[in-house]
Amino acid sequence: MVRVGILGATGYAGIELVRILSAHKGVKLTMLVSQTYKDMKISEVYPSLRGVCDIVCEELDSDKAAANCDVVFTALPHGASKEVIPALYEKGLTVIDLSGDFRYNDKDVYAKWYNQEHSSPELLDVSVYGLPELHREEIKKTRLIGNPGCYTTCSIMGLAALLANGAVETKNIIIDAKSGVSGAGRGLGLDYHFCECTENMKAYKIGTHRHTSEIEQELSLIAKEDITLSFTPHLVPMKRGILATIYANLKKPYTKDELIAMVKDFYKNEYFVRVYDKGLPETNHVAGSNFIDIGLEVDERLNRVVVVSAIDNLIKGAAGQAVQNMNLIFGFEETEGLTNAGLYL
Amino acid sequence: MVRVGILGATGYAGIELVRILSAHKGVKLTMLVSQTYKDMKISEVYPSLRGVCDIVCEELDSDKAAANCDVVFTALPHGASKEVIPALYEKGLTVIDLSGDFRYNDKDVYAKWYNQEHSSPELLDVSVYGLPELHREEIKKTRLIGNPGCYTTCSIMGLAALLANGAVETKNIIIDAKSGVSGAGRGLGLDYHFCECTENMKAYKIGTHRHTSEIEQELSLIAKEDITLSFTPHLVPMKRGILATIYANLKKPYTKDELIAMVKDFYKNEYFVRVYDKGLPETNHVAGSNFIDIGLEVDERLNRVVVVSAIDNLIKGAAGQAVQNMNLIFGFEETEGLTNAGLYL
Amino acid sequence: MVRVGILGATGYAGIELVRILSAHKGVKLTMLVSQTYKDMKISEVYPSLRGVCDIVCEELDSDKAAANCDVVFTALPHGASKEVIPALYEKGLTVIDLSGDFRYNDKDVYAKWYNQEHSSPELLDVSVYGLPELHREEIKKTRLIGNPGCYTTCSIMGLAALLANGAVETKNIIIDAKSGVSGAGRGLGLDYHFCECTENMKAYKIGTHRHTSEIEQELSLIAKEDITLSFTPHLVPMKRGILATIYANLKKPYTKDELIAMVKDFYKNEYFVRVYDKGLPETNHVAGSNFIDIGLEVDERLNRVVVVSAIDNLIKGAAGQAVQNMNLIFGFEETEGLTNAGLYL
Amino acid sequence: MVRVGILGATGYAGIELVRILSAHKGVKLTMLVSQTYKDMKISEVYPSLRGVCDIVCEELDSDKAAANCDVVFTALPHGASKEVIPALYEKGLTVIDLSGDFRYNDKDVYAKWYNQEHSSPELLDVSVYGLPELHREEIKKTRLIGNPGCYTTCSIMGLAALLANGAVETKNIIIDAKSGVSGAGRGLGLDYHFCECTENMKAYKIGTHRHTSEIEQELSLIAKEDITLSFTPHLVPMKRGILATIYANLKKPYTKDELIAMVKDFYKNEYFVRVYDKGLPETNHVAGSNFIDIGLEVDERLNRVVVVSAIDNLIKGAAGQAVQNMNLIFGFEETEGLTNAGLYL
Repeated sequence: MVRVGILGATGYAGIELVRILSAHKGVKLTMLVSQTYKDMKISEVYPSLRGVCDIVCEELDSDKAAANCDVVFTALPHGASKEVIPALYEKGLTVIDLSGDFRYNDKDVYAKWYNQEHSSPELLDVSVYGLPELHREEIKKTRLIGNPGCYTTCSIMGLAALLANGAVETKNIIIDAKSGVSGAGRGLGLDYHFCECTENMKAYKIGTHRHTSEIEQELSLIAKEDITLSFTPHLVPMKRGILATIYANLKKPYTKDELIAMVKDFYKNEYFVRVYDKGLPETNHVAGSNFIDIGLEVDERLNRVVVVSAIDNLIKGAAGQAVQNMNLIFGFEETEGLTNAGLYL
Repeated sequence: MVRVGILGATGYAGIELVRILSAHKGVKLTMLVSQTYKDMKISEVYPSLRGVCDIVCEELDSDKAAANCDVVFTALPHGASKEVIPALYEKGLTVIDLSGDFRYNDKDVYAKWYNQEHSSPELLDVSVYGLPELHREEIKKTRLIGNPGCYTTCSIMGLAALLANGAVETKNIIIDAKSGVSGAGRGLGLDYHFCECTENMKAYKIGTHRHTSEIEQELSLIAKEDITLSFTPHLVPMKRGILATIYANLKKPYTKDELIAMVKDFYKNEYFVRVYDKGLPETNHVAGSNFIDIGLEVDERLNRVVVVSAIDNLIKGAAGQAVQNMNLIFGFEETEGLTNAGLYL
Repeated sequence: MVRVGILGATGYAGIELVRILSAHKGVKLTMLVSQTYKDMKISEVYPSLRGVCDIVCEELDSDKAAANCDVVFTALPHGASKEVIPALYEKGLTVIDLSGDFRYNDKDVYAKWYNQEHSSPELLDVSVYGLPELHREEIKKTRLIGNPGCYTTCSIMGLAALLANGAVETKNIIIDAKSGVSGAGRGLGLDYHFCECTENMKAYKIGTHRHTSEIEQELSLIAKEDITLSFTPHLVPMKRGILATIYANLKKPYTKDELIAMVKDFYKNEYFVRVYDKGLPETNHVAGSNFIDIGLEVDERLNRVVVVSAIDNLIKGAAGQAVQNMNLIFGFEETEGLTNAGLYL
Repeated sequence: MVRVGILGATGYAGIELVRILSAHKGVKLTMLVSQTYKDMKISEVYPSLRGVCDIVCEELDSDKAAANCDVVFTALPHGASKEVIPALYEKGLTVIDLSGDFRYNDKDVYAKWYNQEHSSPELLDVSVYGLPELHREEIKKTRLIGNPGCYTTCSIMGLAALLANGAVETKNIIIDAKSGVSGAGRGLGLDYHFCECTENMKAYKIGTHRHTSEIEQELSLIAKEDITLSFTPHLVPMKRGILATIYANLKKPYTKDELIAMVKDFYKNEYFVRVYDKGLPETNHVAGSNFIDIGLEVDERLNRVVVVSAIDNLIKGAAGQAVQNMNLIFGFEETEGLTNAGLYL
């Protein structure tokens, strides 16, 4: 059994890791770290887990982690990750980091979007961007994963096939993304106070959200040219789910069927990618699962494609993808623990 | 592999059966019946299932069911069940019926609460009320289950231990129950139109809801005397979950701890029952799982106990419990396919 | 024009006062007090008010309040009210307090339920419980109102007519109340974090909620005997609205029509009370308005009445009722500023 | 008093008209038409109106309408409007139509987007597009208003100032709009069934929504050149509100402050338009009111402006704007009945 530790186990991504890994056949949870809830059972913090996982949370002890774990998932606020991870990595652990700290190929991009120098730039050379559908082989060989952001996964995977095939222009790409509130985590804030966000919708961080830089990094790699684009996040009064509506101008006229065939071919071996022949993804098609659903329409009047992609922000956008990465690194079936359908209701 | 058919597969209870059974190790889905969506893949009706279950729905054919299934779940509107089940039962199938038709010991009680004579009263003698925590041994021996209603499971199990121990009076029992909207099913109605029921709460069918009669039947059996009680259902603007707040006068002074010990002892071998030492159940503690959570407070001023119980109405209140019954009948582990924690979020 | 100040203007009850009074023909808002948002326009805190009320918030200055206001509404956390109000009252201001501090006739009841001695017990003699439908004449003559709690208004008014007519027993009264989340105010807390309370329902403070004591005080006055009862509050995933489901045993058999006639007669001159001949109140019938809607059913099997009452917790349960009290004290039409229908949607 | 009739009074736009006009000082409701609920009081259909408006609904009788009304609002499904309106207009009534039938200048545009010939093309010459901020003087002189759609108002008014000033390119305009569910009306449909749309988000009718043609008509008039653009509607799990996120390339570099000054100047005399110096509109800033709030950000990396505009789809997007038009036509204050702040909560 692979021994697993989770740092930040009581946040929303953390608790999804606990839930998913509790049902995973090849691993054993050996350490749950939570500063806030140390000495409490995880099932006291989240009563849904009672009888399923009753491990007691503890403070971080790197030596103990090294002794008791083969892999640690770090679901900490960014910054916190950066402090902890080099020590864990040095001790020989595999680290799958859910923060933004190890998602970058270029430390200058990090510095620009995070407004600070990266404290372990040498680790950026060994870390791999943990999007299995694009970087599977590199993932299998690394011990340090920068697990992609939620908005990012949905946006990149929605456009990758069309850019790889040179079907769309790289200028005038616009990604209008809508997220459920769990993406903001468990930390309190007026914006996430029930009465302030139910029956409400808003845009935020227009042109400045950090996930923009991840999206541009990965799409530029695919397109083999530098891409800058508009990315606008929105908050929607629901718990889970991201829907990205992506606009791109076609280089030449394509029919909808041609583009769908292109996307299907690009993802033809991918279990978690579901491409729609007709209809469009909705967030409740994927909520509770590790699937990403992709559909599109062609607006012939404008020679423009509109792609719609949907994921569960906490699963394919965080914990599920992290487990998918772990599966690849440790030689499990890539889908182990992740094959369930979402709840729909 | 046990071969399973589902009648009414595209309703909300039906789709939960499909979802749960798709991940069950001992069964194979062989027939999904839907009048409305015949010839469509179930995953076209519920895209969440794509890649997980893509079986094509078909019309009911009893002979085909008998040939291809060992067990059928009937998740049909009440009345519809009654027509179909005798034929299936006669052909030797095991039938687990999610309607109200086979939940009664006494056809006169059925006639009174359903305003019609029962059409197969002889089957009431062989059918068993499918609440495993109360009728496990009988369930193992039958081929016809009347699977309990959602309100019913939550109400009966909240009170059973206290009545079995003679701790509460049988007069003045009041059950005030609150349900998510999925309990009303997928059929359209103004009451379930989004704008009419979001941000709204209401009581309905006060004193006349049919589940009252099931609750009274089972609690009377436990108390060994006839019980009549107030049961009030309410509609709450959420998808899943039932919370029952149950009031009963204590026969003599008890402390909270004494009563909790009593309930814990009563359910000491039950995997799916979680009794709270402190705190109270909430619907998101159980949503997405087959657990029932039970807590209580004693109001010493009034010598009254207030029990709070919570279930997922579609799982422990319908599809999950039905699978639990199937597991018992076919000799699987009782918890097979049902051990996951709920989603909490 | 009556000059009005609001203390705690940026809380949820405060902002409702601002909204309602901005459209009131007889008053002028002269002072909005907010510690948290001082020097900000109220319309920067609540952009919904822009162009309607752009007053700058300020710190509390009792002398300034006395100079610039005829009446102040205090929508402060309890305890805070107690400190401030004696000084304001002494300076000759009329004070309408939305906290619990001045709702009691008996300082010992206050001490018991609030776990502390009352700091101005002498003011309890002059303060009036501000439920106009029960205490109209006293209200007209006072300068200090203890404005009722939200759960309280809904509960008392639901039972008053039946108790006044001696139709129900005073033992075994049970009030099961369900509130929208705005009742908890704008203060942050995990319980009110969107992802923790949407799609969730729970009971809390069973047998210990302070509003119990208000309900018992007022119902005992009406019944002319001491009443103790069960009161259970619940949190429902919606913004506004309280629904109270009230159970009482009938002293003798009554028909539903007889009881409805009794309630209608009791409230025959009350603009804000709407009694249902058929059907039952729902929270969206009253949300956004100052109405209280009352319906009932008789359960003949049990000789028990079940009353359902509904209010908007922030209006008839707080700000609207406070304005109704002000109207009475200052000789306006009682309904001034309060006649609008709720939004329904 | 102006005598008012409402056709389609029991739909969601209709009921908003009833609510708003019940509090309007210059009018008297004389006729509520509803096929579905004829002979029922409007307050039986919507109990929120009890005591505020208890008029009995009746079937349509054009002669009676002509005799008893000075103005009729037609809130009927499109198509139905077209049948009825010519007769009413001919009898001398002022007609404010909330359907799409009289919003067009060019019958061919209508025919193309509605897939049918217009049945009264001659009336398109006298009808005026009822957006007061753009067509005030024409509105004052007409008797037939094509009241704008909800998506339309939000989209056009968000872009009008920038196009009128030639600040943005007319190519590559993208409008990504998100609407609450009430925009779909009261008619039942699986898409609006509570359990299917709560906790869910989706795009629909990409490139084909009829409101696209209205937006293009009006923006082309302003820009003095033909504009075609991408318009994508989305359904959001909330009752009210539309948020439009609008992308346009700048013709030359502008600062955010320059563009905000431009928009403010354009709307400097408009009571209902609120332009944000900082921050961005959210739907709960406008829900329950007739305001439209507009904010923007400049993405300097891309030389692109992102405008965010928000309205209440049922008020500024339907009933409120219709009343604003009536006020202009009948010489009332333009803001009469419409000055209240939204509820925020």
